[in-house]
Amino acid sequence: MLETSPKIEEVGIYNAKKAKEWKVQPSKTSKNCHNYIRSIVDTLNLEPNPEKNVIALSLGDPTIYGNLNPSKETTEAVQKALEATSYNGYGPCVGFESARKAVANYLSYDGVEFNPRDIILCSGCSSSLDLCISAVACSSRNDNILMPKPGFPIYRTLAESMGIGVKTYNLLPEKGWEIDLLHLESQIDQNTAVIILNNPSNPCGSVYDEDHLRAFLSIARRYQIPVIADEVYERIVFPHKKFVSTAALESGVPILICGGLAKRFLVPGWRIGWIAVHDPIDALSDIRTALLALSQKIIGCNTLIQGAIPSVLLETPQSFYEDIINFLLENAKMTYDALKKIPGLVPYMPDGALYMMVKVDLEKFPEFETGLQFITGLMEEESVFCLPGDCFQLPGFMRIVITVPTDLMIEACNRISDFCNKYYT
Amino acid sequence: MLETSPKIEEVGIYNAKKAKEWKVQPSKTSKNCHNYIRSIVDTLNLEPNPEKNVIALSLGDPTIYGNLNPSKETTEAVQKALEATSYNGYGPCVGFESARKAVANYLSYDGVEFNPRDIILCSGCSSSLDLCISAVACSSRNDNILMPKPGFPIYRTLAESMGIGVKTYNLLPEKGWEIDLLHLESQIDQNTAVIILNNPSNPCGSVYDEDHLRAFLSIARRYQIPVIADEVYERIVFPHKKFVSTAALESGVPILICGGLAKRFLVPGWRIGWIAVHDPIDALSDIRTALLALSQKIIGCNTLIQGAIPSVLLETPQSFYEDIINFLLENAKMTYDALKKIPGLVPYMPDGALYMMVKVDLEKFPEFETGLQFITGLMEEESVFCLPGDCFQLPGFMRIVITVPTDLMIEACNRISDFCNKYYT
Repeated sequence: MLETSPKIEEVGIYNAKKAKEWKVQPSKTSKNCHNYIRSIVDTLNLEPNPEKNVIALSLGDPTIYGNLNPSKETTEAVQKALEATSYNGYGPCVGFESARKAVANYLSYDGVEFNPRDIILCSGCSSSLDLCISAVACSSRNDNILMPKPGFPIYRTLAESMGIGVKTYNLLPEKGWEIDLLHLESQIDQNTAVIILNNPSNPCGSVYDEDHLRAFLSIARRYQIPVIADEVYERIVFPHKKFVSTAALESGVPILICGGLAKRFLVPGWRIGWIAVHDPIDALSDIRTALLALSQKIIGCNTLIQGAIPSVLLETPQSFYEDIINFLLENAKMTYDALKKIPGLVPYMPDGALYMMVKVDLEKFPEFETGLQFITGLMEEESVFCLPGDCFQLPGFMRIVITVPTDLMIEACNRISDFCNKYYT
Repeated sequence: MLETSPKIEEVGIYNAKKAKEWKVQPSKTSKNCHNYIRSIVDTLNLEPNPEKNVIALSLGDPTIYGNLNPSKETTEAVQKALEATSYNGYGPCVGFESARKAVANYLSYDGVEFNPRDIILCSGCSSSLDLCISAVACSSRNDNILMPKPGFPIYRTLAESMGIGVKTYNLLPEKGWEIDLLHLESQIDQNTAVIILNNPSNPCGSVYDEDHLRAFLSIARRYQIPVIADEVYERIVFPHKKFVSTAALESGVPILICGGLAKRFLVPGWRIGWIAVHDPIDALSDIRTALLALSQKIIGCNTLIQGAIPSVLLETPQSFYEDIINFLLENAKMTYDALKKIPGLVPYMPDGALYMMVKVDLEKFPEFETGLQFITGLMEEESVFCLPGDCFQLPGFMRIVITVPTDLMIEACNRISDFCNKYYT
């Protein structure tokens, strides 16, 4: 077993060479891993008005104000799993069969059918996206991914940390944030490994109809590029619209669908995400293998919650989902109507998800050169914080969350109104 | 916002070029991500003896047989966190301050002092190791890591998936699995980014004393190479030995200590790991930044358990730890004595952790050409499964877990004895 070792002196020489500085150099991977929201927000050094309580319309966490909580079925299910004492040990890297079966059933509607073998549980939807991107793309091939603009920056963060290129395709605010398909097509090149779709959309709150999704998928099919569909807001859609999963369209496009419990079940901190492999033409067999391999790196998500998943998905009553949708819709309407009246602002009524985009007509606010300055001023004077569109690569807009309690939402709208009226010219 | 798009025809040409095959190619990252235990075990196509119940001495999960369970303080703490309803939202990527403070205090003993800012919570200890390796090493520099042989394969799996080289240093069975320091030194080269130490050791069950740890650290200091200390089995040590954390030795070596709740608190499935940054000479400031950046990729671990961590670490009584240690020691002694009597086997009495290594003198079992064949035969005839040393790069050995209920352990030893006596020549 023992191999021959060199004389210490020999090794010593090299030691002397290196002895100068003693500072551990971080990896390129970590240097390329950026949090765009934080880095932009940090540059603002925001100071709220000490005389007004801060209203944060910036946080994409529906639980933050305590007005939206998981169903009692959800907490009871975890309670039971805890008492069962059989969910403390390691689970399979891809998750318990029982949990994967439950997710497969939960996602099987509108003619879609998933099997447990199509499902991989991950530590939150971020982890699902991480696995999907690292399975289909890599720096050694000079791959790039195509993501929406505006779009949630996690896709960029994950890809760049892996040395994978990032290109963007435009969304059209005036067309309900539909994809500019011609622009999408123009952005595709021979190194495009995957196109990322986010529907319903963060930050736009848009929900694509069947025709638009078909048009999008026909491009993916034509160029034979697989899709990662971030559907973490699936079925968080207002009544006049219908959520259509990309898997339901029989497009012949291989799709990795990412989702989780975070948003619809109001437990983002529990870190339960999933990947659902939709592979109508058997183009993803090697990708399934790749995902299994990668899932071994952190050995799955919390087994206690995994034990609860079947009950959570099966027993949460329809009324729970409906109550949330109704609250979001009323909040969105109220906010939209209030902001629409404010000179210099153009709100875009969402069709779902938890967000509303608002355009700031900066020409009407000469006091502020940029949207970032406008956001900063709003915080300094009114203690209202909205996330600048810059975080989603769309300067001149701001994203507000519609999960905040209605009274606070009204108060925030009033303050935004005062602020805009003061500076509008 | 709209950019000019090329004519569809132009793009069409490229489409035609690519249209031939339509199979999504996996990334190099995923192709390089191997589970060595599974790949080796799978080659054995193990068939147990249908007339004998299977006794798995192979699984490093102490909860599997139901004889070892978390303390009631642990489950009650999660219960409380669930009722609090304030642990459902996103936590900071590095974990709640309260949980990090509790971990810092828990790890502050023997003169060691950690602050919350030194602690990063991760999704299990595997995730801790993943972050540490990707923070200090990268393929673009042709870095390599140095890991023990025999050693747990996760280090290799993680490094190889990132394109990072892997070198090994030998452990010496005849010296209580101490590190062959001369060999370690001979393996260091100018591309060695980090040395991984695993103490107490999986698979060896060895526990290093202060002098040996100092000798090891002096080499790391001399070559100015940081250390990742996998101390996930910390304080799972038999009474005649003492666990010494690398952080307690004031060696002047920057160390990333990885640990978690998994082993000592008997909840491996909960995926709660941590990194404790020990940086006596301020060599890791950029690595701290790197770890924070990387922690954003999957946004931390389950917040419900994070909410429970302070109580789990503070309220779990000493008797809980002692009962486990006593059970493991008695089981280990019994097993050691039984296996020592078996011709052709050489058991190595552990000093801690959950494992015992056993050497198989293959010359005495001519029926079997390799250790793998021996393991397979043992399963086929006696339905006892031990993990081949090949999984830890040490053929001719097998690892058995000492967490299995005593009666099953006795039964397993008897069957191993029958098997060995049958084939010993």
